Amino acid sequence: MSAYKHVLIGLDLQPESQQVVERVKSLFPESSLLRTLMHVQEPLSFAYGGDIPMDLTEVQNQLEEQARERLAVVGKELGIPPENQHVIIGQPAHEMHRFASDNNVDLIVVGSHGRHGLSLILGSTATGVLHGSQCDVLAVKV
Amino acid sequence: MSAYKHVLIGLDLQPESQQVVERVKSLFPESSLLRTLMHVQEPLSFAYGGDIPMDLTEVQNQLEEQARERLAVVGKELGIPPENQHVIIGQPAHEMHRFASDNNVDLIVVGSHGRHGLSLILGSTATGVLHGSQCDVLAVKV
Repeated sequence: MSAYKHVLIGLDLQPESQQVVERVKSLFPESSLLRTLMHVQEPLSFAYGGDIPMDLTEVQNQLEEQARERLAVVGKELGIPPENQHVIIGQPAHEMHRFASDNNVDLIVVGSHGRHGLSLILGSTATGVLHGSQCDVLAVKV
Repeated sequence: MSAYKHVLIGLDLQPESQQVVERVKSLFPESSLLRTLMHVQEPLSFAYGGDIPMDLTEVQNQLEEQARERLAVVGKELGIPPENQHVIIGQPAHEMHRFASDNNVDLIVVGSHGRHGLSLILGSTATGVLHGSQCDVLAVKV
């Protein structure tokens, strides 16, 4: 995989993420390659903001902390150091594109989510990442 | 790239296809890996069938022949033998999925067509291929 220098691995931390992790292990074991792990959480306020008159900051912080812990486990498994693990609040495709542009990422790896019926209606994250990406995108079948 | 055994390379044979070819060269030079080249042509009758009362068979055959010649040039460049080069008439994503299922393809490589404004409206072939694919998909930025 010498064609790539910086691979961004986007995980939604669902059980299927493990298939993406396994693929990354077999495709990008090189330590000479920069690998970044990222999990993007949609802000709770996007989902519930207008309807529920409560402060969701604490819940968001807890979710973020949980994601950090789970990403750390994956990072350890892949040998990716903490400084290359990122939990970001935002829109997944947008945040991955932004990080990719700012950090010379030449390949984004995401799960395809092909099995989920909902993605047929809502559009999967993989489709969103593909759309408008300034670098190559590998969608791993999950 | 030992994780993959059979790579299907879908080319639309536009000038940007060369970028996909270059990527394939650097990622999959292994001769142990089965590589298949494919170009799918939409039937002319889909585009003009109802409106123009003429037989388009001859034109379609000519287009198909041209595509075969161009695919042969690419095949030679990549070292892919004629028996692994296919020109198919049909809907690109559908034909690639069908071939992939029938032939144990574990990775489909296509150009992203990210630069073309029309793909924002019509949906690119890459998006179509990603959608419902039973294997991994690598979209090469073109």
